[in-house]
Amino acid sequence: MNPFEYDRTQPHQFGGVLPTPRTFAESAAVILPLPFDRTTSYGQGTKHGPRELLLASSQVELWDEELGIDVHARGMFTAPEMDLSAHGLDDAMEVIGTVAGTLLDAGKFLVTLGGEHSITSPIVGAVAARHPRVSVLQIDAHSDLRDSYLDERHSHACAMRRSLDHAPLVQVGIRNMSEEEAIALPGLRTTIFYDWNMRDDAQWIDKAVAALSDTVYITIDLDGLEPGLMPAVGTPEPGGLSWRELTTLLRRTFETRRVVACDVVELCPIPGLASPNFIAARLVYKLLTYQFGCTSRT
Amino acid sequence: MNPFEYDRTQPHQFGGVLPTPRTFAESAAVILPLPFDRTTSYGQGTKHGPRELLLASSQVELWDEELGIDVHARGMFTAPEMDLSAHGLDDAMEVIGTVAGTLLDAGKFLVTLGGEHSITSPIVGAVAARHPRVSVLQIDAHSDLRDSYLDERHSHACAMRRSLDHAPLVQVGIRNMSEEEAIALPGLRTTIFYDWNMRDDAQWIDKAVAALSDTVYITIDLDGLEPGLMPAVGTPEPGGLSWRELTTLLRRTFETRRVVACDVVELCPIPGLASPNFIAARLVYKLLTYQFGCTSRT
Amino acid sequence: MNPFEYDRTQPHQFGGVLPTPRTFAESAAVILPLPFDRTTSYGQGTKHGPRELLLASSQVELWDEELGIDVHARGMFTAPEMDLSAHGLDDAMEVIGTVAGTLLDAGKFLVTLGGEHSITSPIVGAVAARHPRVSVLQIDAHSDLRDSYLDERHSHACAMRRSLDHAPLVQVGIRNMSEEEAIALPGLRTTIFYDWNMRDDAQWIDKAVAALSDTVYITIDLDGLEPGLMPAVGTPEPGGLSWRELTTLLRRTFETRRVVACDVVELCPIPGLASPNFIAARLVYKLLTYQFGCTSRT
Amino acid sequence: MNPFEYDRTQPHQFGGVLPTPRTFAESAAVILPLPFDRTTSYGQGTKHGPRELLLASSQVELWDEELGIDVHARGMFTAPEMDLSAHGLDDAMEVIGTVAGTLLDAGKFLVTLGGEHSITSPIVGAVAARHPRVSVLQIDAHSDLRDSYLDERHSHACAMRRSLDHAPLVQVGIRNMSEEEAIALPGLRTTIFYDWNMRDDAQWIDKAVAALSDTVYITIDLDGLEPGLMPAVGTPEPGGLSWRELTTLLRRTFETRRVVACDVVELCPIPGLASPNFIAARLVYKLLTYQFGCTSRT
Amino acid sequence: MNPFEYDRTQPHQFGGVLPTPRTFAESAAVILPLPFDRTTSYGQGTKHGPRELLLASSQVELWDEELGIDVHARGMFTAPEMDLSAHGLDDAMEVIGTVAGTLLDAGKFLVTLGGEHSITSPIVGAVAARHPRVSVLQIDAHSDLRDSYLDERHSHACAMRRSLDHAPLVQVGIRNMSEEEAIALPGLRTTIFYDWNMRDDAQWIDKAVAALSDTVYITIDLDGLEPGLMPAVGTPEPGGLSWRELTTLLRRTFETRRVVACDVVELCPIPGLASPNFIAARLVYKLLTYQFGCTSRT
Amino acid sequence: MNPFEYDRTQPHQFGGVLPTPRTFAESAAVILPLPFDRTTSYGQGTKHGPRELLLASSQVELWDEELGIDVHARGMFTAPEMDLSAHGLDDAMEVIGTVAGTLLDAGKFLVTLGGEHSITSPIVGAVAARHPRVSVLQIDAHSDLRDSYLDERHSHACAMRRSLDHAPLVQVGIRNMSEEEAIALPGLRTTIFYDWNMRDDAQWIDKAVAALSDTVYITIDLDGLEPGLMPAVGTPEPGGLSWRELTTLLRRTFETRRVVACDVVELCPIPGLASPNFIAARLVYKLLTYQFGCTSRT
Repeated sequence: MNPFEYDRTQPHQFGGVLPTPRTFAESAAVILPLPFDRTTSYGQGTKHGPRELLLASSQVELWDEELGIDVHARGMFTAPEMDLSAHGLDDAMEVIGTVAGTLLDAGKFLVTLGGEHSITSPIVGAVAARHPRVSVLQIDAHSDLRDSYLDERHSHACAMRRSLDHAPLVQVGIRNMSEEEAIALPGLRTTIFYDWNMRDDAQWIDKAVAALSDTVYITIDLDGLEPGLMPAVGTPEPGGLSWRELTTLLRRTFETRRVVACDVVELCPIPGLASPNFIAARLVYKLLTYQFGCTSRT
Repeated sequence: MNPFEYDRTQPHQFGGVLPTPRTFAESAAVILPLPFDRTTSYGQGTKHGPRELLLASSQVELWDEELGIDVHARGMFTAPEMDLSAHGLDDAMEVIGTVAGTLLDAGKFLVTLGGEHSITSPIVGAVAARHPRVSVLQIDAHSDLRDSYLDERHSHACAMRRSLDHAPLVQVGIRNMSEEEAIALPGLRTTIFYDWNMRDDAQWIDKAVAALSDTVYITIDLDGLEPGLMPAVGTPEPGGLSWRELTTLLRRTFETRRVVACDVVELCPIPGLASPNFIAARLVYKLLTYQFGCTSRT
Repeated sequence: MNPFEYDRTQPHQFGGVLPTPRTFAESAAVILPLPFDRTTSYGQGTKHGPRELLLASSQVELWDEELGIDVHARGMFTAPEMDLSAHGLDDAMEVIGTVAGTLLDAGKFLVTLGGEHSITSPIVGAVAARHPRVSVLQIDAHSDLRDSYLDERHSHACAMRRSLDHAPLVQVGIRNMSEEEAIALPGLRTTIFYDWNMRDDAQWIDKAVAALSDTVYITIDLDGLEPGLMPAVGTPEPGGLSWRELTTLLRRTFETRRVVACDVVELCPIPGLASPNFIAARLVYKLLTYQFGCTSRT
Repeated sequence: MNPFEYDRTQPHQFGGVLPTPRTFAESAAVILPLPFDRTTSYGQGTKHGPRELLLASSQVELWDEELGIDVHARGMFTAPEMDLSAHGLDDAMEVIGTVAGTLLDAGKFLVTLGGEHSITSPIVGAVAARHPRVSVLQIDAHSDLRDSYLDERHSHACAMRRSLDHAPLVQVGIRNMSEEEAIALPGLRTTIFYDWNMRDDAQWIDKAVAALSDTVYITIDLDGLEPGLMPAVGTPEPGGLSWRELTTLLRRTFETRRVVACDVVELCPIPGLASPNFIAARLVYKLLTYQFGCTSRT
Repeated sequence: MNPFEYDRTQPHQFGGVLPTPRTFAESAAVILPLPFDRTTSYGQGTKHGPRELLLASSQVELWDEELGIDVHARGMFTAPEMDLSAHGLDDAMEVIGTVAGTLLDAGKFLVTLGGEHSITSPIVGAVAARHPRVSVLQIDAHSDLRDSYLDERHSHACAMRRSLDHAPLVQVGIRNMSEEEAIALPGLRTTIFYDWNMRDDAQWIDKAVAALSDTVYITIDLDGLEPGLMPAVGTPEPGGLSWRELTTLLRRTFETRRVVACDVVELCPIPGLASPNFIAARLVYKLLTYQFGCTSRT
Repeated sequence: MNPFEYDRTQPHQFGGVLPTPRTFAESAAVILPLPFDRTTSYGQGTKHGPRELLLASSQVELWDEELGIDVHARGMFTAPEMDLSAHGLDDAMEVIGTVAGTLLDAGKFLVTLGGEHSITSPIVGAVAARHPRVSVLQIDAHSDLRDSYLDERHSHACAMRRSLDHAPLVQVGIRNMSEEEAIALPGLRTTIFYDWNMRDDAQWIDKAVAALSDTVYITIDLDGLEPGLMPAVGTPEPGGLSWRELTTLLRRTFETRRVVACDVVELCPIPGLASPNFIAARLVYKLLTYQFGCTSRT
């Protein structure tokens, strides 16, 4: 007898035990847990974000009442967590880019779960190498446009400046920026929708989508959401997108653009408070549902 | 000397020590704590919801600034907590129905505090036996319309399907449903206002009220609220009603319908976080204030 | 039908629902919850100590494996919580003394649950009025012998100085004392067993008991225990009695002295940490078991 | 060598280590930490509010993306925490008034960090002594207009009634009031914008500002915000201002009135939940930015 | 390129990423995570015990300074978590027994991680079927000898009564027992070392070992330890074994008996408190080290 | 008027507001808060250790009941927290050594509060430069003798190997060590008292002291204590010194050796759990009391 012929829990598989399981080859989407975090303490920080998100994901309902569809049978394969703890920072960035590229080449819709925001730029690099006209939709409280931070060009505070090396940006919900970044802005290929005034234009969501090219990468720093809804982030900022604003923006993007990959980063679980983990898991499934359920494209 | 002729705290009385205390006979309303929860661990889960809600309720201001009234002298008697831990599930449902019926027969406005949502159906059954044309207003993230769940027809996931055996539903704020439920929907006596699109119709609150019959039972699963405001629930879902939406909907219902009983369920207290307990207590008092303060009826 | 003819939970009854329930008249012991605490914040402090202890007490096994006896049928009636929030401090002390006296006159073995340590002195006063030769066994990290503290003679820091007005003390586990107290010591009717050196004498437990008169009142400030075991106190102090030391000391006291009343004070529950509440509940039941189960007296 | 010629952390300096440090004399603004709280338990309550706010403030970005300005070089000097633990209540009120007056006389823009709301009235008194026509803008869930509470006229529940002795009020976001206060209202110099209906008037923010005189004192009780965003308060109330409503109201006030001082009170930190501390710190910096960045005045 | 040719984290592998990895076939020991828990709430209870223990285990040092040995290269293969959530209780017991038997037949030293204590009896059954003269060493606060509990014969409160059907017991650290169990004791094949008096005999550890037969199964309910050290259990009981007592007892057992399998159960993680998870992980590695490092046998 | 002529709280002064305040020049001892921690997340880790220890220290009683003395008037000046966040690791080590040297040259008894254990070696270096025959007494669960860790020679895992460059060691309570360290041991100038067997020799404390030279530096990693007493450390290990063992060892050391400086490191505060912070503060004051109160030296 095979000693493991018993039912196995799958705490690190997105969605848990699924009614229609799919192999890697059969899956249209791949979830890549990337708990990259240079802090070393046990039990804290973004390095536990992917695990808690995946653990919570087994509670997410597969049916989406908005689109009237259950997309999970398209296949959403959860790759094993990458372990970059033994890599230097430059080396880690390179490995991330290589793995992302391999998954893109395999035709997968890639959803990466952070970890720190610094993981975004090598993935954008891999995407841009394959889709040169890609643009990036960034939901975030922080512009992350510093050129370097504490002498480090791959800091999370520079995540989007590094991404700019590969593709132009549309940044939504921004409400925190340094003077250095503000001064550099005119020379950068970015369009910013500031949280403090973007809603003054009733068409702001349409305009944000219009600023994107046909092919899009989406990066969602969870601190882009309202901190009441999402307190489990490193630096919560008041203001931010409501769930309704976020899902409306995402849906319009998926309906009118070709989204090739996305990431959800900076979940920093709070012991004893399960709510943010659920919400992040629901957001990931919403991305998958929009990807496979929004069929009309420009 | 009577050894208990000292001031006594009343931690489990709604509102704590009240300026105008009322006996059971004098009270127009009865608060029934029903900490029904089939889990067994100490210190967790919905079984502590009623106690924490009652403990917090002593901080709620009796005067309501919206209606300009203090209704507590109408009497809001808190019954002792029901202890169903020694009952099987079917038996528990029957006892709940019997107790609810007795209180309704005594002419009380019944406000039950859960506990799991499964307590709703026997109460609706008791109401419907006395008010055959009653309809149910449900505030909830989940439709709870499964016919059975893990072979159990009285699971909380089936709470409203069982209630449908007794009365039609108007379900508001729904944002989580299984495919099985979606398929069954056309044959069910329910009108659903989905969270994702109900606000697209500026008259949605009026329409929800219009869908109710003259006599109404209200069930509020606290996960129907925004999870930022109410994280203390078993499965928080992003989206949900704001406090203003909820109170507007409730006020219009009480102004134009005859509400005979209601429940507030699924409070799952989070150690160290008092805010959700206060909010749930305030909601219960708002229900009582609307009941006794909204006098014009259709 | 009596609307409350259902099983009722008894969260504030010591031991919960008991197999052999007893009325006040039938009960040999009375548990008096006295959540006296002059702080006003919600959800914190010793004022929640009695409630959490009583809530945890339903998990305590009634059978005592040490004495091979179950004493609960002797009756351990839980009185309603005293509410002294509207009383001034002097007035509160007087009310406590009166209530304690009434219960003693009724022949009850009184176990008071604090609340702050300041509740002890009026009880000792009531005991001494009835048993003039009583002495007090105090388990505590702090001597609490200040004559006044911040101009207040009924502060918890003066609890035992006030008790000294009524009876001599034997203080065990002391490891925190002010210079003012140290200077006053020679003139006070107290025998101190300091935590730092009491174990140097292998007979220390016998000597502590020997220092007591025939009739004894016991006051246990939970910070007398090791803080690893009992962190839920206002000012945890390293050192302290182990469970084994405490129970050995108590058992010998009950075996050789007549204990007329006792208190367990300063439980300050920590949200999310159930262990200290259990331990305090178990201690209370141990007191009752020793009282009714240790039959041989000097 | 001066033994302290090393880099020093400044955990209790607003903003932490600043690029352009300023002395008291050079600073246009003074931050006064005033952890006044009559409760005595360790580690809980509003007395830790100032410290946690200051600790979190080092993460606040100095550049304000709304006004496009960094005001910190105007000088925001953090005074040492006042220690009023040895003062009686009346005496404490007097000391607060004296200190506030001294700072106002020194020409400083004073931002006081509470602590309980009771600190507001002596500061308003000091302001009114120097600006007799000052009016007060209060953001709060509670009207705090009781004349006395538990025989105490300086309770936090009376904070604004005492302030009324010095200046008229405009109260915004009120959603909790006693009948006693409601009855007294017609005779009081206050204009209330109730949370439940203020938004029914689309111009409510302009009207609130219009009700203020030319010179303004601002007091922000953090429970005026939505409790989802700001659960770290003593009595959270559902409803409340969103961040956008609050900042819009504040900006219009600073643009059209002369604000001479303000306070942010009632932060009651929740262990393990950093988000409210950040948000309060960000609010304080927003006040400073508006003060020094909004140049056009009526 | 194989898309998973990157370093992978192994959060659910005992010891994490090991210097000398071993396949199932190569491994002398198998760690079987068995998160069996009939409660259903998210984020609480013993069902998260195995995961947290495994997560913490990556911090355990492989070298054992007591025996001067590193045993991990003997192979300690972590099987996938068993998922019994879809099984009835009787069925679950049967599956557990079958899986345990298969692993024993494969010659593995089996260390099962609970989950509830009810998992022990089917494993003991599987062991006894292969080693008829096995006896059980149980470390526990509770005797768990009830014949049934709430009509259920496989409750955790009956765990050891069911095990008695298969093998005699030596129970150590017992300090909680019902009268029903005490009465049944004389007829049961068990030797109890009560916590309250076992240390009165300086040779108690030798005597406990002497009471065991040559072949031994060890079950460790973590509540057998001191609750200060191990508060993360369902019902903490004061008293209990110190780490030194536990390891001395275990080492002598491994030195003089043939241990064929063991389990560590009832870890109930406390959010925000990592210490108990570490300690449980260290205990598991101590079991493995003793098994492979204590070579002299009777 | 000096605007700061009000009572000021001193949350970061050891002991808080002291009856006999002392300037730096007047103080025999200096407390140096050194929150060195290379992790970057807000609100977690050892970088908050010094603050929480100092905050708790205001509750520590100044009178020591063991020696019958109050030493605070000898002066225990708290230096400002060092901020090394902008320094590289090698640079930070150098700055620490320079500051420590300056304080030693000023004749101060230096008590450094960590922060990570890596701060110890530069301080030992500064001590050894002034006292060439100094030896180090280390209380710790981990030997910290790796030569490098992740290519870093100043990691906390190498703290004592680096210290060995300056002085021989006596290591007490060790219960975690790598094979690499075990192999290197014979060549190192260290005497280890292993936790698992040191108590087998009833004279172990005397022998540990005897292994020290006349001049001693003491470093206490708080994980050397029992983890039940001190769970607030990065990697809790079962076993460890009790409070009594630790204080006995320290007292004998101070009585018979010349202690020139010490440190207490690795306090990693747990939100909501105050007990470890108190215990660490009490330990620091015990060090000061022994230093100034134990007068007889060899």
